[in-house]
Amino acid sequence: MQPQKLSQSTLSALRGIVGQGNVLTSDEHRLCYAYDAQRLECVPDAIVRPADTAQIAAVLRLANENAFPVIPRGAGTGLSGGSVAAAGGVVLDVCRLDRIVQIDETNMLLTAQPGVVTAKLVSAAEKLGLLYPPDPGSINACTIGGNVAENSGGLRAVKYGVTGDYLKALEVVSPLGEVYRTGARTVKSVAGYNVTSLLCGSEGTLGVLTEITVKLIPIPRFRRSLLAVFDTVRGATDAVVAIMTCGVLPATLEMMDGMTIRHVEQANHIGLPVEAEAILLIEVDGYSDAGVAEEAEIVRAALAKSEASEMKTADNPADRERLWEARRSAIPALARARPTTMLEDVTVPVTALSEMTLFIQQMAREHSVSVATFGHAGDGNLHPTFLADDRDEDEIARVKQATAEIFEKAIALGGTVSGEHGIGMTKTRFLPMETGPATIEVMRSIKRAMDPNNILNPGKVFFED
Amino acid sequence: MQPQKLSQSTLSALRGIVGQGNVLTSDEHRLCYAYDAQRLECVPDAIVRPADTAQIAAVLRLANENAFPVIPRGAGTGLSGGSVAAAGGVVLDVCRLDRIVQIDETNMLLTAQPGVVTAKLVSAAEKLGLLYPPDPGSINACTIGGNVAENSGGLRAVKYGVTGDYLKALEVVSPLGEVYRTGARTVKSVAGYNVTSLLCGSEGTLGVLTEITVKLIPIPRFRRSLLAVFDTVRGATDAVVAIMTCGVLPATLEMMDGMTIRHVEQANHIGLPVEAEAILLIEVDGYSDAGVAEEAEIVRAALAKSEASEMKTADNPADRERLWEARRSAIPALARARPTTMLEDVTVPVTALSEMTLFIQQMAREHSVSVATFGHAGDGNLHPTFLADDRDEDEIARVKQATAEIFEKAIALGGTVSGEHGIGMTKTRFLPMETGPATIEVMRSIKRAMDPNNILNPGKVFFED
Repeated sequence: MQPQKLSQSTLSALRGIVGQGNVLTSDEHRLCYAYDAQRLECVPDAIVRPADTAQIAAVLRLANENAFPVIPRGAGTGLSGGSVAAAGGVVLDVCRLDRIVQIDETNMLLTAQPGVVTAKLVSAAEKLGLLYPPDPGSINACTIGGNVAENSGGLRAVKYGVTGDYLKALEVVSPLGEVYRTGARTVKSVAGYNVTSLLCGSEGTLGVLTEITVKLIPIPRFRRSLLAVFDTVRGATDAVVAIMTCGVLPATLEMMDGMTIRHVEQANHIGLPVEAEAILLIEVDGYSDAGVAEEAEIVRAALAKSEASEMKTADNPADRERLWEARRSAIPALARARPTTMLEDVTVPVTALSEMTLFIQQMAREHSVSVATFGHAGDGNLHPTFLADDRDEDEIARVKQATAEIFEKAIALGGTVSGEHGIGMTKTRFLPMETGPATIEVMRSIKRAMDPNNILNPGKVFFED
Repeated sequence: MQPQKLSQSTLSALRGIVGQGNVLTSDEHRLCYAYDAQRLECVPDAIVRPADTAQIAAVLRLANENAFPVIPRGAGTGLSGGSVAAAGGVVLDVCRLDRIVQIDETNMLLTAQPGVVTAKLVSAAEKLGLLYPPDPGSINACTIGGNVAENSGGLRAVKYGVTGDYLKALEVVSPLGEVYRTGARTVKSVAGYNVTSLLCGSEGTLGVLTEITVKLIPIPRFRRSLLAVFDTVRGATDAVVAIMTCGVLPATLEMMDGMTIRHVEQANHIGLPVEAEAILLIEVDGYSDAGVAEEAEIVRAALAKSEASEMKTADNPADRERLWEARRSAIPALARARPTTMLEDVTVPVTALSEMTLFIQQMAREHSVSVATFGHAGDGNLHPTFLADDRDEDEIARVKQATAEIFEKAIALGGTVSGEHGIGMTKTRFLPMETGPATIEVMRSIKRAMDPNNILNPGKVFFED
């Protein structure tokens, strides 16, 4: 582990800002903050845990004076290295800013500090009959600040969109330590540049979010879930296209391939069809029982014309719960299989799902690696998950090669190397392939303008010059 | 009228790029391009009508070499001066880029050049059973490029959102004349900064949009319309709050005050209640007949508990059409009343609608001016429309004073000075009041980084240093 590199005077200035107990420099602490939910280790020099916006602003002003990187961090559940210290420096942990500031029930707005766990935010809204739709897989651990920084998606994105679709306003500390507000608490606003959306998904490189206002919607109280079983991947992906063009939008449309099904069943004994090569899990929801029943029937009719070998409707809450437990347990079940799980995130147009899924399986065969694929099929968003062993360098190299070819294929199919996990530090090499150099130069010019001293989260999104 | 100020060599270079016939410099042409849909006159030095992206890039490179402003323009239907030449220079009319490039029916994406009239885009999608939801009032004349540049709203925004909510990808010519692409053709994408959203609503100051990809949704085939009549404005605004919290989202929720009702009725003889102080026009839509009927009933129940003196359901298409004709004819009917119509655009949280509407009426009395208010009540978006005479300087001064106080009130109520018309050049003075100076400085830093020579649409959004 590399030694802590900050000067004693910087450390004591940090202690002066956030208090003695909120500057962590021990090797144990630094190692705890060296990871997110992917496998790269990046040890920071120190961790600070500010209590409020003013302390965050002071830390950033100090960072500009003393030239050390600052890496904003929520719960560290990210999957692309967005919250780890790629170039050393100070991790700015926002966990103490964990208050729901206000819920405006009538205007359907919720204002929270960045360290609020997303599930807590969702449940506070639910108590008032309101829904915050984005539901990233790590919802019980991740924070709303991290969700905004990465523009997180989730299972409901096919109908309800992602974090950015609900983001209304922000309080921000700029990289230079200036506090400002963006956006509006109104349904519509076109007052100046949309800095709110620029910050959303900027992975902590353009500002530290200190207050977040999201819009809520009335809870769709009615829902119907369906399961469809397929003997081939192509049968399932063709059915996805049929559903997405049947005239109604499902709230959720998930796919699991054969290997995922078998691992989930082995771990959880849910009763999944272990002989199948793919299943689709579908949910339709809405504000009227009759309407949802009608929409579910339209989806069922589309499925009936597909190659599904079996179809089940989850008629009661217990059946429904079991169905969605299967999907939720995909990652934990796969993580049990081998020492190292490498979860990827490619998105293609729905029409290219079939080609993408089959290509992933082909790559696994060609490079002799093991991959299970599941994901948000309605979005074209797949999570090929490599099951490997970190101690086997050759296997990891083969996984990396397969991943690189999968990214290139996703781009060739008109897709993106990241649907919802961000570029972080794990995909910087692939971003220019997707966007081209001129777009990267525009992004860099924005970064240079807003963060002239390159203080916030350096080494992320695009390589620095 | 000021003389044309471009040098002969610049003009001949422009002719070399776009062709002799596509550089307009006559006084008549310059006057035609001196207006948008508001009253300020700004005469450009010349107009160019490029045929493609390459010509636009060449015009911008020339502008950087010869230091003249370039003002992108669609149909000129804007209401804040976004497309007029505030500081002289060359208007870049995109009307020749008027092709729908591609409709991807399965992935529900439409790609268009910026000069495509929005109604044409909508109707091309409709033929495939798909809807492009944003519906600005000028939909039959305005262009998709202008809609993106101003992030236009419309009547359906309360449920379906605004232009930016449907924008997926762009081809852009940067202020320096570089061509690049942003965004993705997938449902989700978090690959790098969201430059797409930054450009949306940037009013032609950060780039010229040359190709626009929007997402479509399946057409909600079922709808129910309702009319509710009120003796007081407060009764109507209370009903708006009741509807917005009844648990379902109407597709449209419009309000017209007494003066608007009487002008519309006088012009169109629709049968509106001329004694009323306010009416609400409501539409519920969806994918299932039974579902929409149930949702309409929930809205009707909320209205039944309000102070509505009368309620009507439009049960057949002819009744429904008459109801919405009333709303669509608000602007033309008001425009007949006096020589000069000054249409404003403030948005407040729905809970502040009552106070905002009554304040607008109070301002009219205090400043002895005539104002009719209508708007998208479900969004909190009001269009106070002043009826005046341009030749009466004193009256115009009083309108301006009333407008300024209305803007200040909107900000005080937690609202915005522009819900959907943009800042352009008519509201630059009010933007800093809303955002504060630190936010303006962030916006300016982005402008300086992306347009170092201040070529694109100078004098808009915020005052230049």
